[in-house]
Amino acid sequence: MHVIEIIQKKRDNKPLLKDEVNFLIKNFLSGEIAHYQMSAFLMATCINSMSDEEISWLTDAMLYSGVVVSHDNISGPFIDKHSTGGIGDKISIPLAPAIAACGLKVPMIAGRGLGHTGGTLDKLEAIPGFRCDLSLEEYKKQVAHIGCVIMGQTKDIAPADKIIYALRDVTGTVESIPLISSSIMSKKLAEGIDGLVLDVKFGSGAFMKELERARTLASTMVAIGAHMGKKVTALLTNMDQPLGTMIGNSLEIIESIDILRNKGPHDSTELTVELGAEMLLLGNKCDSLEAGRDLVRESLASGQAFTKFIEMVKAQGGDVSYVLEPCRFKPAPRKFIIEASESGYISSIDSRTFGLAAGLLGGSRMALGDEINYSVGIEIFAKIGDQVTKGQPICVIHADDKGLEEATFRIKNAINIVSYPVTKPVLCKERISTN
Amino acid sequence: MHVIEIIQKKRDNKPLLKDEVNFLIKNFLSGEIAHYQMSAFLMATCINSMSDEEISWLTDAMLYSGVVVSHDNISGPFIDKHSTGGIGDKISIPLAPAIAACGLKVPMIAGRGLGHTGGTLDKLEAIPGFRCDLSLEEYKKQVAHIGCVIMGQTKDIAPADKIIYALRDVTGTVESIPLISSSIMSKKLAEGIDGLVLDVKFGSGAFMKELERARTLASTMVAIGAHMGKKVTALLTNMDQPLGTMIGNSLEIIESIDILRNKGPHDSTELTVELGAEMLLLGNKCDSLEAGRDLVRESLASGQAFTKFIEMVKAQGGDVSYVLEPCRFKPAPRKFIIEASESGYISSIDSRTFGLAAGLLGGSRMALGDEINYSVGIEIFAKIGDQVTKGQPICVIHADDKGLEEATFRIKNAINIVSYPVTKPVLCKERISTN
Repeated sequence: MHVIEIIQKKRDNKPLLKDEVNFLIKNFLSGEIAHYQMSAFLMATCINSMSDEEISWLTDAMLYSGVVVSHDNISGPFIDKHSTGGIGDKISIPLAPAIAACGLKVPMIAGRGLGHTGGTLDKLEAIPGFRCDLSLEEYKKQVAHIGCVIMGQTKDIAPADKIIYALRDVTGTVESIPLISSSIMSKKLAEGIDGLVLDVKFGSGAFMKELERARTLASTMVAIGAHMGKKVTALLTNMDQPLGTMIGNSLEIIESIDILRNKGPHDSTELTVELGAEMLLLGNKCDSLEAGRDLVRESLASGQAFTKFIEMVKAQGGDVSYVLEPCRFKPAPRKFIIEASESGYISSIDSRTFGLAAGLLGGSRMALGDEINYSVGIEIFAKIGDQVTKGQPICVIHADDKGLEEATFRIKNAINIVSYPVTKPVLCKERISTN
Repeated sequence: MHVIEIIQKKRDNKPLLKDEVNFLIKNFLSGEIAHYQMSAFLMATCINSMSDEEISWLTDAMLYSGVVVSHDNISGPFIDKHSTGGIGDKISIPLAPAIAACGLKVPMIAGRGLGHTGGTLDKLEAIPGFRCDLSLEEYKKQVAHIGCVIMGQTKDIAPADKIIYALRDVTGTVESIPLISSSIMSKKLAEGIDGLVLDVKFGSGAFMKELERARTLASTMVAIGAHMGKKVTALLTNMDQPLGTMIGNSLEIIESIDILRNKGPHDSTELTVELGAEMLLLGNKCDSLEAGRDLVRESLASGQAFTKFIEMVKAQGGDVSYVLEPCRFKPAPRKFIIEASESGYISSIDSRTFGLAAGLLGGSRMALGDEINYSVGIEIFAKIGDQVTKGQPICVIHADDKGLEEATFRIKNAINIVSYPVTKPVLCKERISTN
């Protein structure tokens, strides 16, 4: 078996064998296959795609390049959620404790933000002291004792994925359904879970803009799950506008606390309830989605979800006083209110621009190693379909020493108002499941 | 302009701009674009190809990444030949002096062999003392004084091509008409030539097996030449069987000397005459191909071609006594005769197997830096269409300490004999020219 022959097969769109996929991943990880060879293979995969079989072999190879967590002697079920990411998507943060409070184990390994979408870990680190770099032992212990954890990918988890992911980022090989799905699934399956709920975004602010491609990505990941004997459900959810009202790290923690205290915005609460109901259904904690929704709502309303969040923050070294009194989060020194430029109905909101603006303000990394300003961000009060009156505040920009002018200019141009009523988009569009 | 955007454009099969092609080559050469990024681009090019415009920009960018030789104050015309390579193809060696003897300047920069085809430089180095590593100054001087030179690519000649070529070899991105044609043409145009004759091989022993693809490669290179204001003629020639009677380094020098002394095999002499006539026509040394053929035949018959070869070998440090007495070349210690297994007509000869067998005997490099055994190789007496009698010797294997058994086995199986007469293949199949 030779790496060049394997690359040539993918280049010529010929089917790979399982052994060839394993050979590639194993020898890349050991350093025998060079980065320039792997990137040629990744590009050939981007263009010629992969069969379902090849994708599951690739997932398998990346998964077993590292540790697959075993939650010995701990009662499950272990159910996690993954989102393909969108502007204002902080759902993991309220969801994990809300569902752990319902009796599931949520052993979540999450990512950092790069570019226009924020990362769950960056948001959590807005809480002073919060640690995302737990060891695998600490991770397992916390799952056992508290029922939920949110931490970063350790070097033991799917190490082949970790280096391939970094390589894709600099070689124009990110946008590939086989590569995206195997990367997500290898990391998630390494958590030792029984089931997984996927939130696959589509729309202007999503990585996959077209519903059709989002659907393909969702079915691909559901198929990988089925192949591995796991229960997987994917929801295709709308990302044509930011989710919730807050964009920015500490702002999103504040909104998460609102959701957990049952006073969150309608859309982000609804998505927490929907995804939570799916997780509970996979974990056999309810017989129907409707019953699952009730359980999540009850968890939020009773304060049990919030209590579980406090336990989690404490266990991971975070300063709980910030959670109890969110006004302790240092506010951004400058605020700028954007008003509706005319009366009418919001017809579109370019959510990517919100992500970019948050970046311009210093709220996300443009390059690995950049410092993040946790305080900055954008609040948005009006959503697509809402009626607004000229001069009504619709956004607040929270800024520090940079980017205010450009962010304001961009945000103003990212919101369209028309004179006629506009239908609100449906948040959860479709559902694909192994069941 | 950003490298990732350029890679993505080629990945998505969108047209590149001239500035983008230049940016890519310039920054790759300076080290700012990484090998893994270039290899992703090369793979995208392999799969999605390039437009004629993109190919000429790429050729231009690689050409001007280095020196374009200027033959100041030396009267031309400067005409070269390039072959895409085939088993037993030693034509450059008799051709350059034969044509220089007719009054053209032949400033040839040639390559080394890797894998199953031998390289012109490796063959010439079978002559003790022969130097292929001339400086550009020595190169220009020799062209001026002797009229021909055959040397290796210096670091000044198309350096971007040199590293891209090496990268293609290890990333499965060799088989791409845009990449092959721009690589060949950037090196050849750097010689400061007025015209170029291309010998594009097709058939079982050629790099491009199908006539159709060979034709596309030929037209692409002719178009690049036209774009650069050069006269280019391509001949599509048959490589369904080895060319001439000798395969192996010193064996091919011996055959080259035979051609130069007007006692060479029919086919390799014919190809020398055809390619030479095309060169003379491009260089305005004759009015018709027929007149050109006569000039080349006269050059061979008169001894002028041979004298010119001696001058060239002497100028490049080679021991002329070997040229004058080819029996001085050290023979391989073991010889094995292969006889016709039955009476009939030769119907096919798998020439790739001859190349592989020469490699097994130690006659070519399997990896860069391998040592070459100049003495080993294969002689072949019978060609497609020839009538043979059972037991008649058709090949001689010249072996040293390795590979004899396997080479013999393979060669025996590479020659087919049938009971009915077989038509001999036409050597020069088609002609494509800027004229």
